[in-house]
Amino acid sequence: MKIELSYWYKLLVPRAVVLISTVSKQGVSNAAPFSFVMPASVEPPMIAFASDPDHHTISNIRETGDFTVNIPGVDMLNQLWTCGEDFPKGVSEIRKAHLTEQKSKKIKSPKVAEALAQFECKLEAMYEAGDHIIVVGRVVDGEVKRGLFVKGKYNPLKARPLSHVGGNEFTLPEKIINAI
Amino acid sequence: MKIELSYWYKLLVPRAVVLISTVSKQGVSNAAPFSFVMPASVEPPMIAFASDPDHHTISNIRETGDFTVNIPGVDMLNQLWTCGEDFPKGVSEIRKAHLTEQKSKKIKSPKVAEALAQFECKLEAMYEAGDHIIVVGRVVDGEVKRGLFVKGKYNPLKARPLSHVGGNEFTLPEKIINAI
Repeated sequence: MKIELSYWYKLLVPRAVVLISTVSKQGVSNAAPFSFVMPASVEPPMIAFASDPDHHTISNIRETGDFTVNIPGVDMLNQLWTCGEDFPKGVSEIRKAHLTEQKSKKIKSPKVAEALAQFECKLEAMYEAGDHIIVVGRVVDGEVKRGLFVKGKYNPLKARPLSHVGGNEFTLPEKIINAI
Repeated sequence: MKIELSYWYKLLVPRAVVLISTVSKQGVSNAAPFSFVMPASVEPPMIAFASDPDHHTISNIRETGDFTVNIPGVDMLNQLWTCGEDFPKGVSEIRKAHLTEQKSKKIKSPKVAEALAQFECKLEAMYEAGDHIIVVGRVVDGEVKRGLFVKGKYNPLKARPLSHVGGNEFTLPEKIINAI
């Protein structure tokens, strides 16, 4: 069956979702959910995400040259949703959502304490792509909650990270199946 | 807890997985699974994925300027895994995996009939990113199996698309949870 092409992205689901936190040069923090996101390189470690170019996340990254990728677990579901609402640039979504802002080690953008993991990223490149902009960042520091990543192996059934389906619909990994 | 930075991508899981099919200028088809993938633009519709630059998928895309993004459901689990094995360039993974190659409408790369959906893409740009290359394609045609995408809404619980966790571990959406 034919599909309207601008709907194609609705079929690449569920998509892992991240909460990206940034700060403006005036010092106002921001956090917004993104599910147009992927790893871009293993060594050096890099992430890519696509955003509306008018998003505050983009203007903040242009100002500071960095951003933090926070991995939200199921406990953050409603707070993640709140961060996706449209607040004016002077308002911090992190505070509006009653999340805890933490100072990062190597970059200006703060991190979100409640997340399962936080990755501090320095901007590598931005590329225009249609109505979005692809942001590539290099991971310069990373923390994960104790007990979730043991001997190089992550336990998503214990971590319960959120994936986005569409609208306010999300899903969680419930069980693992093995190929061959 | 600190995490080895080159392991960061193991925490952005589960990741939606796609099977990308291409063809060389000699006419040999190829299909390989990728989970470093995301939507890049809504209008015009674009996809981005990151690949090892030495992958046959990349050399084929350089030769033809196009590729097909196939969305695999759970029925394709072992076939997807077979496509991820390392075959010489003269061997078609699509045949090795006993999948059905179908002619695309608007591009040279074939599509895989068994997939939940197939998106024909024309190459827009390639960008180096560390040890990977980011490929951006424009979706020029799209098909989805009847009954999965009704009135603009996709039903992932019915479609049962595969997400990658790591190694030979995958997961499926089992239930939907709603924010607020």
